[in-house]
Order: sequence, then C-alpha cells, then structure tokens
Amino acid sequence: MTDKLIKPVTLKGFRDYLPGPMMAREQLIETARQTYRSYGFSPIDTPALEYSEILLGKGSDETDKQMFRFTDQGKRDVSMRFDLTIPFARFAAQHLNDLGTPFKRYHIGTVWRAEKPQKGRYREFMQCDFDTIGTNSNTADIETLLVIHDLMQNIGFDDFVIRVNHRRVLNGLLEQIGLTEQSTGVLRALDKLAKIGRDKVIAEMTEQVGATAEQAESVLQLAETTGDSAEDILARLETQLASNEQGLSGVACLRELIEACRTVGIPAERVELDVSIARGLDYYTGTIYETFLTQLPGIGSVCSGGRYDNLAGLFTKQSLPGVGASLGLDRLLAAMEELGLCDKSTTPAPVLIVHFDATHTGDYLRIARELRAAGIATEVYPEAKPIKKQLKYADRKGFRLAIIAGADEFATGQWQVKDLTKGEQQTVGEGELVEAVRGVIAAK
Amino acid sequence: MTDKLIKPVTLKGFRDYLPGPMMAREQLIETARQTYRSYGFSPIDTPALEYSEILLGKGSDETDKQMFRFTDQGKRDVSMRFDLTIPFARFAAQHLNDLGTPFKRYHIGTVWRAEKPQKGRYREFMQCDFDTIGTNSNTADIETLLVIHDLMQNIGFDDFVIRVNHRRVLNGLLEQIGLTEQSTGVLRALDKLAKIGRDKVIAEMTEQVGATAEQAESVLQLAETTGDSAEDILARLETQLASNEQGLSGVACLRELIEACRTVGIPAERVELDVSIARGLDYYTGTIYETFLTQLPGIGSVCSGGRYDNLAGLFTKQSLPGVGASLGLDRLLAAMEELGLCDKSTTPAPVLIVHFDATHTGDYLRIARELRAAGIATEVYPEAKPIKKQLKYADRKGFRLAIIAGADEFATGQWQVKDLTKGEQQTVGEGELVEAVRGVIAAK
Repeated sequence: MTDKLIKPVTLKGFRDYLPGPMMAREQLIETARQTYRSYGFSPIDTPALEYSEILLGKGSDETDKQMFRFTDQGKRDVSMRFDLTIPFARFAAQHLNDLGTPFKRYHIGTVWRAEKPQKGRYREFMQCDFDTIGTNSNTADIETLLVIHDLMQNIGFDDFVIRVNHRRVLNGLLEQIGLTEQSTGVLRALDKLAKIGRDKVIAEMTEQVGATAEQAESVLQLAETTGDSAEDILARLETQLASNEQGLSGVACLRELIEACRTVGIPAERVELDVSIARGLDYYTGTIYETFLTQLPGIGSVCSGGRYDNLAGLFTKQSLPGVGASLGLDRLLAAMEELGLCDKSTTPAPVLIVHFDATHTGDYLRIARELRAAGIATEVYPEAKPIKKQLKYADRKGFRLAIIAGADEFATGQWQVKDLTKGEQQTVGEGELVEAVRGVIAAK
Repeated sequence: MTDKLIKPVTLKGFRDYLPGPMMAREQLIETARQTYRSYGFSPIDTPALEYSEILLGKGSDETDKQMFRFTDQGKRDVSMRFDLTIPFARFAAQHLNDLGTPFKRYHIGTVWRAEKPQKGRYREFMQCDFDTIGTNSNTADIETLLVIHDLMQNIGFDDFVIRVNHRRVLNGLLEQIGLTEQSTGVLRALDKLAKIGRDKVIAEMTEQVGATAEQAESVLQLAETTGDSAEDILARLETQLASNEQGLSGVACLRELIEACRTVGIPAERVELDVSIARGLDYYTGTIYETFLTQLPGIGSVCSGGRYDNLAGLFTKQSLPGVGASLGLDRLLAAMEELGLCDKSTTPAPVLIVHFDATHTGDYLRIARELRAAGIATEVYPEAKPIKKQLKYADRKGFRLAIIAGADEFATGQWQVKDLTKGEQQTVGEGELVEAVRGVIAAK
C-alpha cells in the first residue's frame, strides 16, 4: 500500500510493555486494587489532560519544565498530568460537596514527565495512590500504615520495614530550642543525614542555617534516638521533648499507632520509629511513612506518604486535611524482578491444547471451553501444524501443560496430558480431564 | 497560601470518574481481562505518546484533525494515541521477531480524540481490544466469536446477538455478477440498508455507483438472505453463489464457524448470519462481527471486529494477517446503567465498623482485620462521631451492614450486627462475627 516503510520506534524515554512485564504489572496493580478495596477505598479517575493553570498550581520552575504542555485545537493551554496529587486536589474541590467526608479514594493511573531519561526512569509511568481526606483523626493515619503493611505482604514480601515519624516531634523540638524560624533549613540539612553523615549535617546547620553548635547537636540527638523497642524510643523522645506540647502530641500519635499495631498483630520488626525522616518538607504536617525492602535497601522507599493539612488550598477555601501514601509501582517491579519474584511465563493460560487434527477443531474448542468453565485458562493452538512446532511454541511461552488428541485418542476417548515442566505424560479419559489438569497445575 | 483560587474544572469533552461509575468501569475491565486471559491472550501496553508520523500512518485528514498533536521539549512532532490499532501495528513490526507467531494479545487503554463533544461522546475514552495475529486459520476466527460470546455472558448479558458475515461472500457475488471494480461504492451503499431502506440503496447503486438494476437486485437479494436456521441460510447462499470459488470459500468458513458453535454449545439464537453487514470496508478482509443487545438495539454494536490481511504494512514488509475485536466499553457502561445492571453502592466494602468509643480504636481495627482476612472488605469509620452520623454515612455510601460495639458490648464480648438494607439487628459473639457477616451478605 505504501512505498516507504515507517520505522517502528517508540519515543525517547517511553517504552512498550511486552507480555511478561505487563503481566507482572497487571498483577501488582490487581494486588494494590484488592488491598485498597479491602479497606473501603473507592476508585476514581481524572483526565490525562487538564488546564495547565490547574496542574501548575504553585508548582516550581522544574515542574513547569517537566510537563508535556501544549495548545489544543480550541486554543486552550493544556498539559498532561505529571502526578495524581494535584488532579486529586482539583477533584476534591470540585466534587467533595457531593461526595461528602470522610472520603477514601485510590487512583491508579499513568503520569507523564519530560525528565532526562536514565536507567529505570521513564517519561511515562504509573502512580498508585490512596488517601483518606476530610478527617484529622489519627485512626486514618494508623490505617494508612496498615494498608501499606498489607500491600507489601499481599505483593509477596516478608522482609520489609515501614519507617514512621511525626512532623510534630521534630517541630516540637525546634520550638523548644528556639529554631522554629530556621526549621526549613534545619530539616533540609537533617534529611541528608544518611547521605553525608553527622558532621557535615552539623556543619550545614551551623554554617549555613544559623543554628548554634548546641542547637544542632540537640536536633541530631533527637533524630538519632534509638532503643530496644518502639516503646523505649517513645519514652526517650518524651524525656527529650520535656514539656513541649507540640512535640508531646506528636509522640502521643506515634504511641497510639504503635499500640494499635500491637493490638491488630503487626509483627513488631516491621514498624520502626525513625525521627530522622524529614521527607516532603513542604507538604507533610503529621505522620510520615517510608517503606524499605530489607533485601534491597538501596532502591529507596517503595511506598511513602504522610499526613497533610490542606489538600486543595489552591482550589477551595474549604480546609481538607488528609493522609495517604503512594506505591512506587515501577520501582517495586524492578525490585521484584531482581529478587526473582516475577514469573517467567508470558501466557496467562496454563494449558495449551495441541491442534493435532483439523477435522476435530470443534472438539478442541469444546474441551477448552470445559476447562475454562472449571476456571482453567486454556489456549487452543490455531492451526494443525506439526506437533513438534506446537510444543516448541508451548515451551517458549511457558505453558504448564499440553493436551494432545489425534484420531486414536478420539476413537478411544482418551487424551494425552503432557506436563511440560517435568516432561511426564499421562493418558486420561475425557471425563477425568479437568481433574487431571488441576492435579498437574497444583503439583507445580 | 494563594490569594486567588483557581477554578476547579475539567476540560471540555473530558470528565472525572466518581466512585460509582469508576467501580462499574473497573468491574467491566476486570471481566474483559479475565475473559481474554481465559483464552490465553496476554496483555501488552504501548505509550500514550508516539511520533505523529507513526500514528498518522496513512490516516485521513479527519484523523489528523482529531489528534492531540504537539511539539515536545526535544522538538519532536508527537501525538497522543487515538486508537490501539496503529500502536499495535507498530508494536508488532517492532517486536514480533522476538515474540513469535501466532501472537495473541489484549490491550486495554485510554485513547484521545479531539472530536466535537456530544452526549455520551468524550475526548478521552477507553478501548478494550483483543487480536490473534500471524495466522490465517479460521480457528482463530471462530475463537474470536467465542471470546465475544463469553465476554457478553460474563458481563451479565443473556439477550444478545452476534451477527456474523464474511467479506468473501459479498466479494464473491460481486465477482460473479461483474461488479468487482465498483465494490467500494456498492458496499458503501449496502451499509446504509438499515438506515435508508432498500429502494434508496438500489437507487444509489444504479445512479451513483454505476450498477445495473439487475446487478443491484442481486446484491440486495444476497444481503437479504434469511432462513429458518444458520444452516438454511448457508445452503441458500451456496445456491446463489453458484460456482464462484471466492464466495463459496467464504460460505465454507461461516459453515465451519456455525458447526463449531453447535459443537461447543453456544445457543443458536445468539449467532446470526447477516450478509448485509459491510462494516470496516477498507480494513476487514474475512469474517466480520457485530454484537447487539436485544433490549437496546438502538445503541448499536457493542463489540465489533473481523479479520484483516495485513496489520502492519506501514511498518514492515512481513505480512501479518490477524483477527480480533474491540469491546465498546463506554457504550456498554451506558447500556448497563440504562438496564439497571450497575450497583448503586459507591463503596467496594460491604461492612462499616462504627467507631463508637475512641478508647477501642485498636479493637475496631483488629476486628476489621479479621474480616479482611476472611475475604470481607471492611471499613472502620475514622472518628468517634455520633453513631447517627456514622450510620448516615453508611447509608449514603451503600454499605451492606454496620457493626457496632461500645462499652457494654466489649464487657460482654458481644457485637451488634445491623443489616442496613432490612434494618434488622442481631447480637453476635466475637467468635461468630465472621460467619454472621457472611450470612447477611449472602442473604442479599
């Protein structure tokens, strides 16, 4: 039809998902969805395109540069969403009078950022957020931690730690030692503790932020508080914060959280109080969460979040406090691949019915239908090609077993069931086929 | 923080999905996904943005006008995808050497078209496609029909008809009566049969396309072939096509399809041979499918597709025949709403645990956790507000039941289980709570 072929390529920073990675991504999304739903979070969606004015909000120059922004056919200044938080803020301001509060939503969607592409970073990726808004109750904060915990467990991780902090603990200390006005600089320095070490953090606080050596030391001491148990740490924090009301209220929130974790049976080693976490400086005002895989601490937090005072201040005068977190879907997928948690198979069906004899197409389709009715996904090879070729196809795709029947088998009503992993083959009457297939799949 | 509020609005032709509609959409997507997977179709995804050259392909001016097209930060001419077919063609040309054939994929994704917005038509919507490529076998065509059938049934429809035709039947007749060269015009006229009626179709064929009255009459006669059964229609078609090889091969394909439907047990009334279907003139070359809801024929086909000769001719010299169909997700959602098939509830959780006593927050969370472990999605109201307010919330969201416990209940280990639909309340020991809740949910 065309003389010149168009070269089939994707844009820089974008990629296709082939069946293997896409099945892993679908499974992860499904797990997140089921976990969020089990807590009563409802799904929402917002458009990929919005007015640039809305998405930019009070955004930085960097955000601006990263947005895919253009003028549409109607001369509107529009952009593709670069996160799900600002669209949620706009959504809340627009619909919350109808929806009422408290409002719990999850939102799993694609976002776009024209960042410099680098290993593992793409210009198109998925975010997977959940939030409870319209309540100041610490119960919502505790529940957020439980959701993160269940999410990690349901995905299949055993060894992970959720680190928790409360902004009021840090703010209380700063108030107590007279550093409130320098808090942004102090927390920014503190946030580098793991990267640059104690001495350099103190140097930054004293030389650049204007704290005294004593003040800097107090901040570091609080941030480095450790203990034999969360209860132990809480007691020490209380001592250090003396009678500072703000700080003690933060400790009280953390205490309630730790107690609830004990009551509901979360393993103690999975929740760690860490007063040095100072992430999301401009945004979070209460509890803060970060989640690390014990086997892969280097990849950073895979699920982070916290409490904020006012979600939608750009769009409404109504104050909307809330708490939530975001699952780092792509980072987690990379981790699962590294830990060998991803299936090698590229087919969702365990069973391939070999198309042995073209005069029996209807029978192959009928048997496949019976297996499907029993909940077993089944593919029929579309053509009566040589059996060797069909088994090679089955092997390449990672089918668990093949079912084979030719003229002899149809004459006797017997089917060959071939276990493709073990290479074993059994002869099964048509009436016992479903049970035999179930047996092979379960034996995996 | 800001002095001037930004007005929270979506762009013209775009919309938010609130929890109710979004839950219905998620359920529909999940059903499609499970159905496709049960046949061994694997998921893929492609980027929302591609080079405009690729998406435009040999597209018409109309396609061009409908694309959200712009120059990105790297001065590339890019566009947002307006369907999933062209991205799949590009994908196949790029990856099929690695993936091998036959290749069966589904793709559920958002597409964007800057069409004039009108009732029920948006500039952003989802497509839900499945295809088998790399095989000419009629088995893949039959399977496509089976997938459509199961999809409709799994969504919850009983009364639907899949209309089937084969392009070779029509082409064979045109060849036989010497109208091959005028086929585009003839088929375009025929496609209007249901809308403008027999006389006007004949007028168009004779006056504009250049057919004789006799030729036009032959086309109409074939298109209007009816019979007591599919077998009856097939026999009549064979007679009309006399010895035209192309036409008879089309009939043979349809015969094999009908026979397979009988063998696998598809109800006869759900598959209808309809020789007047001439859709997708430029694209389809073999089997053609359309699916209509008996109760809502006016909304048009909700799942359509067919066989094509060459998917990726724009991008590769490799010939890639295939067959597939696309579920009209948004059209179907509208239909389901009209037929009252959508749940009124806006929460995915059936159970709300009332937050009666703030000193028992941990216990509420613990009980919720036990219900979740039993597979019952459960929400805990986040604050100890007046019970009336919490039950009003439960009612608004559509929870199935509420669980209530205060000081008295904790003292005796008894919980109140309130059926919110029937208004009945029972007292249940904590050990029997899961069973009692299951009972209420099952009784719905």
